[in-house]
Amino acid sequence: MELEFLKFLAERVPRGERVDLGVGDDAAILSWPANERLVVCTDMICDGTDFMLAQCGAEAVGRKALAVNLSDLAAMAAKPVAALCSMHLPRQNAAEIARGVTEGILNIANEFNVAIVGGDTGVWDHPLVVNVTLLGERPPGDSWRRDGAQVGDRILVTGDLGGSISGKHLSFTPRVREALAIREIIRVNACIDISDGFSIDLHRICAASNVGAKIIAAHIPISAAAKSQPNKPAIQSAIEDGEDFELLMCVRPADAAALMADSRFANFLIDVGEITQATDLVLQQGEDTKTLPPLGYTH
Amino acid sequence: MELEFLKFLAERVPRGERVDLGVGDDAAILSWPANERLVVCTDMICDGTDFMLAQCGAEAVGRKALAVNLSDLAAMAAKPVAALCSMHLPRQNAAEIARGVTEGILNIANEFNVAIVGGDTGVWDHPLVVNVTLLGERPPGDSWRRDGAQVGDRILVTGDLGGSISGKHLSFTPRVREALAIREIIRVNACIDISDGFSIDLHRICAASNVGAKIIAAHIPISAAAKSQPNKPAIQSAIEDGEDFELLMCVRPADAAALMADSRFANFLIDVGEITQATDLVLQQGEDTKTLPPLGYTH
Repeated sequence: MELEFLKFLAERVPRGERVDLGVGDDAAILSWPANERLVVCTDMICDGTDFMLAQCGAEAVGRKALAVNLSDLAAMAAKPVAALCSMHLPRQNAAEIARGVTEGILNIANEFNVAIVGGDTGVWDHPLVVNVTLLGERPPGDSWRRDGAQVGDRILVTGDLGGSISGKHLSFTPRVREALAIREIIRVNACIDISDGFSIDLHRICAASNVGAKIIAAHIPISAAAKSQPNKPAIQSAIEDGEDFELLMCVRPADAAALMADSRFANFLIDVGEITQATDLVLQQGEDTKTLPPLGYTH
Repeated sequence: MELEFLKFLAERVPRGERVDLGVGDDAAILSWPANERLVVCTDMICDGTDFMLAQCGAEAVGRKALAVNLSDLAAMAAKPVAALCSMHLPRQNAAEIARGVTEGILNIANEFNVAIVGGDTGVWDHPLVVNVTLLGERPPGDSWRRDGAQVGDRILVTGDLGGSISGKHLSFTPRVREALAIREIIRVNACIDISDGFSIDLHRICAASNVGAKIIAAHIPISAAAKSQPNKPAIQSAIEDGEDFELLMCVRPADAAALMADSRFANFLIDVGEITQATDLVLQQGEDTKTLPPLGYTH
């Protein structure tokens, strides 16, 4: 099946200007410009954990497999360039599933100008697993790392939080374009994509930067999906649920103000609190202030 | 588990001179020198297909996951630089298996000076799956592609073939050092690593290059493991068995002679035949000449 599949891929994959040799040899060859750093990440997603193949279909799986990596590159303000995609397919309907996953990958790859330069497929008697590695580029300099948050920074998020499981975890648009646009305007001291949950991912920024944070509960943007969950307070969903794939950014107050005054960003960026000197994280709800524990999805 | 595991990784992984930011952020950042092309490949290996975890243990799995990629880079004469490793672990003994796989990866990574710059781990109720993506570098120029074989080229292999399943598929040393040394001396017109079988991989070279080949059966180096298989003629094993992870190279006769005259290569390089104008592949056994079909492992 792999030969046929590679032929299919070779006809369909975007090549990209960096690609000297694409799919079909032992490895791909790319040219890397001297003025761009190479930014690289990888994610493996599996049936039953990260998606339910029988419910969402193979195209949604392919889309998500690349999208989660695009979100990681967005969190580094890197421009996506090329991806490698591996999968092991359940024996039943293997060819059909492979085609669907590939369609899903190719569609979002085209949307974000990502070349597909390599892959590996196999068949086994267990559920679908898909791995994508994504290469991106960015100029050297401030790199949106997790460890750069400064006391006094405003904490911004790029969209509504919570309840992603009801659909957004498959359909989200990774914040690549927003990150690249923001990079042109201000310096971002620290950034992470909210993949495991707002609370735990904010904890990661604070731990890496050796700072704390104060979050205003009333400012947290709560998704409609979080509000419609019957068994959990919406604010709790927004704070704890994983897979929002929004960016959480720490920026100087003046930079935050500049972004908020820019019509391109004002309609989706939300200021939810500030970085503090104390290394604990607190949530202010009305008059109450309580500790914000590192809740979220743990692998 | 992932946090603890990343901490373990961050303490143990080789960093490498190209690595500006390693494991622990949303993505890694590398500097790429302007005079080096980026060569990249990926492979996913699974319990029950590519290894038997219960028999070989987790370290052997980690070693193989990186080694198969090192073999792909060797086939492009690229120098390995950095790897990203993902895995999904069976729930039972997940932490122990993760540690074993990582040890196996780290040991061979250190041996070949490969930095580990990223990863992703998860747990599920199915067998172990490990994916490695490997980045390497090579100067621009002749790139050991599959499509460069020329009529009259000698066909060289780097070691004994067949019977890999009895152990070599886990313990092989990828031919990285040999490839880099050969690159310094001669031009290689085409190269592939024998991963699916000598016959099928030679077919791939010939199809890509639009040439044929004539192989002398008596010259094929047959491994001791192939000779000791009870149910299959040894020559058939050598021709059809997968996972030899030796290189198959096509080089001009004068270059082949130069290599064979060099004491560094004379003891393991074997000349097994030549590239022909006819686009069929033939095997000469004594006085007989028969067609060599594309036999081997198909995914």
